[in-house]
Amino acid sequence: MSTAQVIRIAMSSPGDVSGLKSLFASGRLAPGDVLAVLAKTEGNGCVNDYTRGYTTFAYQVLLAETLGVSREEIARKVAFVMSGGTEGVLSPHVTIFARAGAGGTASGPKRLSIGVAHTRDFLPEEIGRMAMVHETARAVRAAMTDAGIDGERDVHFVQIKCPLLTSERSEDARKRGRDVVTTDTYESMGYSRGASALGVGLALGEVDAGRVSDDAICSEWQLQSAVASTSAGVELMNCEIIVMGNAAGAGSDLVIGHSVMRDAIDGEAVREALGSVGIHVNGSVRTADAERIVNVFAKAEADPSGYVRGRRHTMLNDSDINNTRHARAVVSAVIASIVGDPMVYVSGGAEHQGPPGGGPVAVIARA
Amino acid sequence: MSTAQVIRIAMSSPGDVSGLKSLFASGRLAPGDVLAVLAKTEGNGCVNDYTRGYTTFAYQVLLAETLGVSREEIARKVAFVMSGGTEGVLSPHVTIFARAGAGGTASGPKRLSIGVAHTRDFLPEEIGRMAMVHETARAVRAAMTDAGIDGERDVHFVQIKCPLLTSERSEDARKRGRDVVTTDTYESMGYSRGASALGVGLALGEVDAGRVSDDAICSEWQLQSAVASTSAGVELMNCEIIVMGNAAGAGSDLVIGHSVMRDAIDGEAVREALGSVGIHVNGSVRTADAERIVNVFAKAEADPSGYVRGRRHTMLNDSDINNTRHARAVVSAVIASIVGDPMVYVSGGAEHQGPPGGGPVAVIARA
Amino acid sequence: MSTAQVIRIAMSSPGDVSGLKSLFASGRLAPGDVLAVLAKTEGNGCVNDYTRGYTTFAYQVLLAETLGVSREEIARKVAFVMSGGTEGVLSPHVTIFARAGAGGTASGPKRLSIGVAHTRDFLPEEIGRMAMVHETARAVRAAMTDAGIDGERDVHFVQIKCPLLTSERSEDARKRGRDVVTTDTYESMGYSRGASALGVGLALGEVDAGRVSDDAICSEWQLQSAVASTSAGVELMNCEIIVMGNAAGAGSDLVIGHSVMRDAIDGEAVREALGSVGIHVNGSVRTADAERIVNVFAKAEADPSGYVRGRRHTMLNDSDINNTRHARAVVSAVIASIVGDPMVYVSGGAEHQGPPGGGPVAVIARA
Amino acid sequence: MSTAQVIRIAMSSPGDVSGLKSLFASGRLAPGDVLAVLAKTEGNGCVNDYTRGYTTFAYQVLLAETLGVSREEIARKVAFVMSGGTEGVLSPHVTIFARAGAGGTASGPKRLSIGVAHTRDFLPEEIGRMAMVHETARAVRAAMTDAGIDGERDVHFVQIKCPLLTSERSEDARKRGRDVVTTDTYESMGYSRGASALGVGLALGEVDAGRVSDDAICSEWQLQSAVASTSAGVELMNCEIIVMGNAAGAGSDLVIGHSVMRDAIDGEAVREALGSVGIHVNGSVRTADAERIVNVFAKAEADPSGYVRGRRHTMLNDSDINNTRHARAVVSAVIASIVGDPMVYVSGGAEHQGPPGGGPVAVIARA
Repeated sequence: MSTAQVIRIAMSSPGDVSGLKSLFASGRLAPGDVLAVLAKTEGNGCVNDYTRGYTTFAYQVLLAETLGVSREEIARKVAFVMSGGTEGVLSPHVTIFARAGAGGTASGPKRLSIGVAHTRDFLPEEIGRMAMVHETARAVRAAMTDAGIDGERDVHFVQIKCPLLTSERSEDARKRGRDVVTTDTYESMGYSRGASALGVGLALGEVDAGRVSDDAICSEWQLQSAVASTSAGVELMNCEIIVMGNAAGAGSDLVIGHSVMRDAIDGEAVREALGSVGIHVNGSVRTADAERIVNVFAKAEADPSGYVRGRRHTMLNDSDINNTRHARAVVSAVIASIVGDPMVYVSGGAEHQGPPGGGPVAVIARA
Repeated sequence: MSTAQVIRIAMSSPGDVSGLKSLFASGRLAPGDVLAVLAKTEGNGCVNDYTRGYTTFAYQVLLAETLGVSREEIARKVAFVMSGGTEGVLSPHVTIFARAGAGGTASGPKRLSIGVAHTRDFLPEEIGRMAMVHETARAVRAAMTDAGIDGERDVHFVQIKCPLLTSERSEDARKRGRDVVTTDTYESMGYSRGASALGVGLALGEVDAGRVSDDAICSEWQLQSAVASTSAGVELMNCEIIVMGNAAGAGSDLVIGHSVMRDAIDGEAVREALGSVGIHVNGSVRTADAERIVNVFAKAEADPSGYVRGRRHTMLNDSDINNTRHARAVVSAVIASIVGDPMVYVSGGAEHQGPPGGGPVAVIARA
Repeated sequence: MSTAQVIRIAMSSPGDVSGLKSLFASGRLAPGDVLAVLAKTEGNGCVNDYTRGYTTFAYQVLLAETLGVSREEIARKVAFVMSGGTEGVLSPHVTIFARAGAGGTASGPKRLSIGVAHTRDFLPEEIGRMAMVHETARAVRAAMTDAGIDGERDVHFVQIKCPLLTSERSEDARKRGRDVVTTDTYESMGYSRGASALGVGLALGEVDAGRVSDDAICSEWQLQSAVASTSAGVELMNCEIIVMGNAAGAGSDLVIGHSVMRDAIDGEAVREALGSVGIHVNGSVRTADAERIVNVFAKAEADPSGYVRGRRHTMLNDSDINNTRHARAVVSAVIASIVGDPMVYVSGGAEHQGPPGGGPVAVIARA
Repeated sequence: MSTAQVIRIAMSSPGDVSGLKSLFASGRLAPGDVLAVLAKTEGNGCVNDYTRGYTTFAYQVLLAETLGVSREEIARKVAFVMSGGTEGVLSPHVTIFARAGAGGTASGPKRLSIGVAHTRDFLPEEIGRMAMVHETARAVRAAMTDAGIDGERDVHFVQIKCPLLTSERSEDARKRGRDVVTTDTYESMGYSRGASALGVGLALGEVDAGRVSDDAICSEWQLQSAVASTSAGVELMNCEIIVMGNAAGAGSDLVIGHSVMRDAIDGEAVREALGSVGIHVNGSVRTADAERIVNVFAKAEADPSGYVRGRRHTMLNDSDINNTRHARAVVSAVIASIVGDPMVYVSGGAEHQGPPGGGPVAVIARA
C-alpha cells in the first residue's frame, strides 16, 4: 500500500516556489510523487483573482523543469487546486499532497490515505445537474477504492475541482439545442460546486438519493455533505477528486478527522475536529499538541439568512468587500485562535457543504 | 452616588434610532440621563466613512427633539463616540451609557461606575505631544473622581475621543511660528490616539513618567495602557473622557473587568476578561452566562511586524481592503466565537493601547 | 405659468446643507418653492451606500425646520433623488429644482419648464412589469401637462424615482398567491428602473407599444428611451416623476437639450447635447460658454458586451470595484473634459436608458 | 542605424503571451530584437498587485524558451516595465519595443529611435536623493547617444524603471551608519520616481541644476520633466532607461511627439500631442487618422490639492479605492474619448512628471 505525505509550505508571494524546490533538492520529497498542490493564495478569491493562475503556472514550471517533462503533462498528472483570499490572519501557503509507492501493512492502525479519481468530461448542459451528481458520486467511490478506504465513515475530506460555464460553453449547448443551468458564469460556479458536493453526499450516503434532483441543487440546502470541499475552475471540463480518509494498513504517520461548523463562529466544531484526531482542547491547543497538526481545512460562507446567532451581519450588503472575503476572515480567525496558527486553509463558497452559513472542517495531524 | 446604566441596542441602519426612542417612550431610560452614545456603524471605519456622521446626527436630532433643546446643546452635553467598520460577523449597534442621580450605598460591593471629564481645548501644536499627554492624564484622574473610583486597578476601560489635525489647524500653528507633529491628517489621528492613550497610562501608573516624551509617542511601543481605547474625530479640539471602573457603593447591578490581547487571535485574553467578572469559560460561554454579558469592548490592529504567531499576514500590503478592516474582522470573530454573540464593540487603531498587534479587551456584565 | 429654477450647489460632505441654507437666508430661493433635491453623494453608489440616506435626512431636517412643518410632510411634498458615487473627478453636489408660482408669457420663446407627477402605489407583483410601464407612461404624460409641454420632442430629461422589492414585499405577494419578477432585491432595482424607463419611452413614442411586454423588460435592449433617467429606492412604492423640457411661454431664463451617448467614451454626443442648447464646441467649451451651463446630467453603465470600441474592458470581472463605479468615473471624465467642469451629474444603471453601454446626456443652460 | 519597432498586443489575461508568440512564429518579429516589454496589466496597480509579476514571469518564460537561454539572462537583457491598473475603459495590453540592427539613412527625415541605458546600482541611501538624480541624468544622455538623438527637444518620452527601499535595504544602510530618505517602503517608491524624473529633467535642461537638491525632491513640485515616466520596482537596484525620440536617419516608419496635461481632464493637451505627430483633431480623431496611432502613453495622478478646476474631488479621501485607480480611470477615459480607442497606456504616480495633478502624454504614430 502506498504512503501518503502532506507537507505545508509558507509562500512569500504567489510566484514563490522556493520551499518545494528545497524539498526536492534535499531529497525529502520525490518530485514524481506529487499528487496535488493545494494553495491558499493572496488574491481576492473572486472573479479577477489572478494569483491562482500565477501560482499554478509557477508550480507547473517548477515541476516540468524538475521532472524534464512538458507543462501540459504536469497539468494532466497533478491536481492544482487554488483557493484565493488570505483575509485577516490567513497566511499564504501551499499544501503538497504526495504518495510514495510502498509502505504500510494491512494489519496496522488506520492512517491517512489519499485516493484520486477523475470523472469523464461533462457536456455544458450537464454541469450543475444530476448527470454531474451521479458521475461525481461514481468517481468518489473510485477514489475511495484507490485510497483503500472501505467505509464511508472513514472519509473525512473530499476536495473536488469542478468546471464552470463560460459563454462559449453555453453557446455550444445552445447550438446543439440544449439549455444550460444558467448563462451567468459566476452563478454556474455555485451550481457546479453544489452538484459536486451532492455527488460526494450521494457516494457517502449522506443524502437520500430519492431527494436529490435538478431542482434541489442549490435550492434544498438541508441536503449536505459534511466532508465535501469543492471549487470551480475554468481550465477543466471534468471533476478532479481527492479523497482523504483513514485506511487500515496505510503506511502514513498521519491521521485525519473532521467535524462541521454550524455557523462561522462555531469554535466547538473546530475542537471536535481536533478531538477526533486525539487532540483534546479546552480553549486553545497546547504547544505540544500544536506540533502534531499538519493543517486544518475548512469552508466558509456568509450566512445567507443575513444573521449569525440572531444578530444582523452586513456581509451580504457590502458592495466594497465581497461577502466571501468577510467569511474567510471570520472562519480563519476562529480556527487560528484555537490552533494557535494562522497558516490554515479556509476556502469560500460552501453550497451543500455543511449547513447554510457553516461548513466542514477537517484536521490532518501526526498520529 | 449615581447609578450607571449600560444598554446595547441593535441598529438596522446608520440612521436607525428607533431602539432608543422606544426606551424613552417606555420610560425605561430617561433622556436626560444619557451620558454617552458609543456606536459601531457599518461604514469602512476609515477616512470617508460617513456612517459615523450620519449616526451622530440622527441621535443628536432624536435627543434634541426629545429633550426640547438645540442640537448644539446635545453635542456639548453628550459624548458621541462612533467607531466605523462592522467587518465579518460584527453587528451594527449602539451602546448607551447613562447615569441616574441617586442609588448605591458606600458600603456595598464594587459595581460599575462611570465618570466623565473633558480636557481643555488643545492648540494644534499640542496634539500628539506631551502637553496632550499630561492634560489627558489630569482629566482621567478627574473622571475617576467623578466616578468615585479610588484605585487605578479599579479602572477597566477608558474611552477617549480626541482631536486631529486638519490643514487649517496646521496652518494656524504655522502662522504663529509653531510646528505641528505632522501635517498629514491621517497620521495626526494616530499621534492623537497615541498621546491620549499614554495620558491614560500615566494617570493609572501603567507607564513610567520618566520614559514618556515627545519622541516616545508612536515610537516606543512598549509604553502601553491596558485599558485605554482612543479614537480621533474632527469635530472637537479637546479630549472627551469616559472612565469605566468598579466602585464601592455604586448602585449599579453591573460590573466591569478587562484583560489584554497579546495578538489578534488571543482567545485566552478574552477568557481572562470574562473570568475577571466571574464568567468562567473553557471553550465558549455557556448560555446561562451569556445572558449576563452586556457588551465586550476591544481594540484591534494589524500586527505591524507583518507576522502573527510567526506566520506572514497580508493585511499591511492589501491595497484593496484597509488593514484596520481586516483586523476588526479577526478580533471580532475571535470574541464572538467565545461569547457566542457577534454584537460586540471592536474598534481599530490601537497605538499604545496594549502591545503592537494586540489590544485591551473589557467586559461589562450583570453582577 | 410658473418659472423653473435650477441651482447647483457644492457639498463639502453628505451632511452639508449650508449652501441651501444660505440661499434661503439671502432670499434668493423661497423654501416653499423647492420641488426636488437631486444629489450626487460621495458613497459607493451600491447597496450599502448610506450617504444617500444621510443627505436625504439632512435636507429633510433643514426644510422641515425652515418651513416649520414635519419631516414626513417634506418627504411627501419634495422629491429626493440621491445618486451615490463620485468616482474620478466627480464632485459632490446637489441640484435644487424649484418652481415659483408666476412668470412667463404664452408667447415667449421655449424655455425650461418642469413638471411633476406621481403614479399610484404599485403592488409588489407589478414592479418591473407592464402594469408599471403603463402607469408610469400615464404619469409622464400628466407631468408633461403639469409642465405645459405639448410635444414629445420638447421633453429632454425625465428623472424617475421608482420602488424596489424587499423580501417583505415579495413575501406579501406570495401570501396573496402572486409571484414577483425576481426575489433578488438587487435585481429588482434593475427591473424597476427598466420598466420605468420603458414607461417614459412609451409616453414619448420612443418605443413601439406592440413590442413592449413583460418578457421584453430588461431583455430587449433595443427598446430604449433617449431621455429617461431612473433610479430605484426602498422608501417608496410608487414612481415620482420629474419631466424637464422646453415650453413656449415658460418664464425661465434656462433651456434644456439632450443627446445619447452610444458608448461610455462618446464625446461627440456630449458636444451634440451642448450644441442643442446653442453651445457649439470643437474640443472643449470656451470660458464664456462655460458660464452658461447650469449642469449636465448623464447615465453610465459598463458595456455588457465586455468590450468598448472592440477592446476588452475589465469592469464586469472586477470583484474589488463594482462596475457601476468604473462606468461613472469614465463618463464623468469624458463630460468634464469637454465642459471643463467636474461638478456634473452622472448616475449608474441605465437599463433601457439609451443603448447598452451608453446612455442619455442632457444639458441645462442659461438661454 | 538601427530600426525601431513598436507593437501593441491585446492580452486576454495577465498570463496571455499568445500574441507575441504568434508574432515570433510568423516571423514578423525576431525574438532577439526585443528591447522592452511595457505592459498594462489588470491588477490594482498598488502594493499587492501580482499581475505585474505574473506577466513578467510569463513573458520571461516565453522569451527564454524561444531563445533557448535562461530566464535570468532574459531578465538582464530585456526591460520589463509593468504598470498595473486597467480602471474604467482601459484595456489590458502589452507594448513591445524592438530594434533591428540595420536600416535608415543619415539623411532621411526624423523618425522614432529608441535608446537604452542603465545606471550603476545605487546604495540604499542614494535612492531618492541627488546621487540618483545625477547618475540618472548621465544615463539619460547615454541613452540619447545610443538612440542617435542629438537634441533635447527631440526626446519625447523617457520611461524609467527605478528601485525602491525595502526594510532589508534600509537596515543595510543603517548598519553602515547611513540614513535613508524614508523607511516607509511605499513612500520610497515616490522618492525614487521623483528623483528619476528630476534626472530626466536635468539631462534635458528642463530643470535648473541650481534648484535641484535633496530637499527639493518630492517637495518643489514646480521642478518638472515634461517627458519623464518613471515607475519603481523591487527587483532592481539601478535605473533602466528607455529614451524615445525622433532622430534624423532612423529607419523606422514611426514618429513620436508629446505634450503635458495640466490636469486630469486636459483634453487639449492630448490633442496637442496628436497634433505634434501630424494628427489634427477637433473633437475626436477621424477614422483614417486613428489607424496611424500605435499607442498613447500618459501619467496620471489625483490632484494633490484636492481640487480639479476649482471643484472638490474625493479621490484622496477614498479608503475603498486607491486614488491612483481613480486617476487612471479619468485620464484614460479622456484620452480614449479623443483617440477613439481604450487600449492606451496610462500609469499612476507622477512625481515631478508634469505639474501636480497632470502629467506627460506622448503619442507614437505611423509617419
